[in-house]
Amino acid sequence: MKVAVHVTLKPGILDPQGQAVAQALRRLGFAEVADVRVGKYIEMKIDSAHMQGDVRERVEQMCRRLLANPVLEDFSIEDPTP
Amino acid sequence: MKVAVHVTLKPGILDPQGQAVAQALRRLGFAEVADVRVGKYIEMKIDSAHMQGDVRERVEQMCRRLLANPVLEDFSIEDPTP
Repeated sequence: MKVAVHVTLKPGILDPQGQAVAQALRRLGFAEVADVRVGKYIEMKIDSAHMQGDVRERVEQMCRRLLANPVLEDFSIEDPTP
Repeated sequence: MKVAVHVTLKPGILDPQGQAVAQALRRLGFAEVADVRVGKYIEMKIDSAHMQGDVRERVEQMCRRLLANPVLEDFSIEDPTP
């Protein structure tokens, strides 16, 4: 099965990468760009045969332990698809 | 208004970052992790007052010109929200 996770910087945390992208876009003529934030999009294939417990709970543990930095980042887990 | 964009590696393009994450997760005891791909999740605030034309078209241009590398990456644009 497949699960996708979004990892984004918490509101209020400075995003220099996003600021650089916003500046570059405006320089290219996209004057409408007011703000850009850059996060991660992680797609995982999960082998259900090896899994103990609920997918969502397992993926939440993965986020807390490795995929996201809980001090700086939020994460959200999409519904698993077969 | 807000628009989000996913930028992902094209299928078949090697993802060393994803492989490293998958290995690390398995080492932490998440044996069910079969594969990981890491992409970008870009959230933009768009100032409609400064915009010429259709949002989706403008964001597609941004993707082609800056946000994605069209040789290696695919992008998808989410529906804009107010």
